[in-house]
Amino acid sequence: MISSLHDALASRTSIHQFQPDRPLDDARIAALARLATTAPTAYNLQNWRLIAVRSPEGKARLKAAAFGQQKIADASVAFIVCGTLAAHVHLAAALQPSVAAGILQQPVADAWVAQAHASHEGNAALQRDEAQRSASMAAMTLMLAAQGMGLGSCAMGGFDAQQVAAEFGLTALELPVMIVAVGYAGTGNGAQKPRKALAEVLTLA
Amino acid sequence: MISSLHDALASRTSIHQFQPDRPLDDARIAALARLATTAPTAYNLQNWRLIAVRSPEGKARLKAAAFGQQKIADASVAFIVCGTLAAHVHLAAALQPSVAAGILQQPVADAWVAQAHASHEGNAALQRDEAQRSASMAAMTLMLAAQGMGLGSCAMGGFDAQQVAAEFGLTALELPVMIVAVGYAGTGNGAQKPRKALAEVLTLA
Repeated sequence: MISSLHDALASRTSIHQFQPDRPLDDARIAALARLATTAPTAYNLQNWRLIAVRSPEGKARLKAAAFGQQKIADASVAFIVCGTLAAHVHLAAALQPSVAAGILQQPVADAWVAQAHASHEGNAALQRDEAQRSASMAAMTLMLAAQGMGLGSCAMGGFDAQQVAAEFGLTALELPVMIVAVGYAGTGNGAQKPRKALAEVLTLA
Repeated sequence: MISSLHDALASRTSIHQFQPDRPLDDARIAALARLATTAPTAYNLQNWRLIAVRSPEGKARLKAAAFGQQKIADASVAFIVCGTLAAHVHLAAALQPSVAAGILQQPVADAWVAQAHASHEGNAALQRDEAQRSASMAAMTLMLAAQGMGLGSCAMGGFDAQQVAAEFGLTALELPVMIVAVGYAGTGNGAQKPRKALAEVLTLA
């Protein structure tokens, strides 16, 4: 497992050319969503929602909200990965299954809920940061889950958030953080782009 | 590879108890950082920096800035994962190796630079969101890279960002987004916490 996991990370590239007309069945879409939501969240907030856009009609609306990018139409499915705001309000409920399973002690859950309320209540900036973080970690996990199915993916930040929200019925508390297109890689995709030298990005302390 | 990658995602848990006094050599820390920065970024901005805190003295300072959380002291290394603001200013330079390698055509790189300047210049909110997204995807990748080495990890959001910035010499453009503690799992770590039912988090469109 060790080397294959590293190989997977090292070899992942963003896919810009997908094979069109290659649908994924809903069971595989569900499996991708299930794996994506194994990502961690602060306090196990699970402050996210995924909209898997895979109908031609849905993809056309999403493509229009994403400046006409063709990969949304060509990919098998485009996930709108949302982070949710004010998630602390639902934290007690979100933690209950962990308490019931004996993984989390009730007093610890209570302390987390109290901490989350104290820090998040009325703090719009923190709620937004938290939504970005959770959705981004889920998006990264989703891309790797796709890779594990032999599929390619592309994280997309170029879209009109208000248009996406309106077209797909997001609530005022749901922030579309990223679109992740998933499908079968076509031809003409480039190699992984070189990264900065380690000396530029890593400091030891 | 397919099933082992899914197994890795499905079995990852946040490690709260590390075996103390189990250092990681700098070559392995570098390998983790190298893998973490294979994560994607918008326009390949690579708007991140990692500070790998592994000296006892450094860990004591970071622990103090993280409300005394013991796992920072016990973990082999605690990475401060920073997102950088105003990254568009350095995008042309960041893309040059991709152009030189023939992976990216110069006119495409020029167009990305123009787009990034048009959208990011003067837009502090977008710069912050982008920093959160890039750092979070790197953090997720880092946790999986650690898993691939047989190590455990924990994403930590509970710290005083200003104190971290002051203690570790971050610039005003470097935002500490997350701490990722990495080390050898000790005893007493719980199972993965249950996630919400798929019907609560996935919508098909």
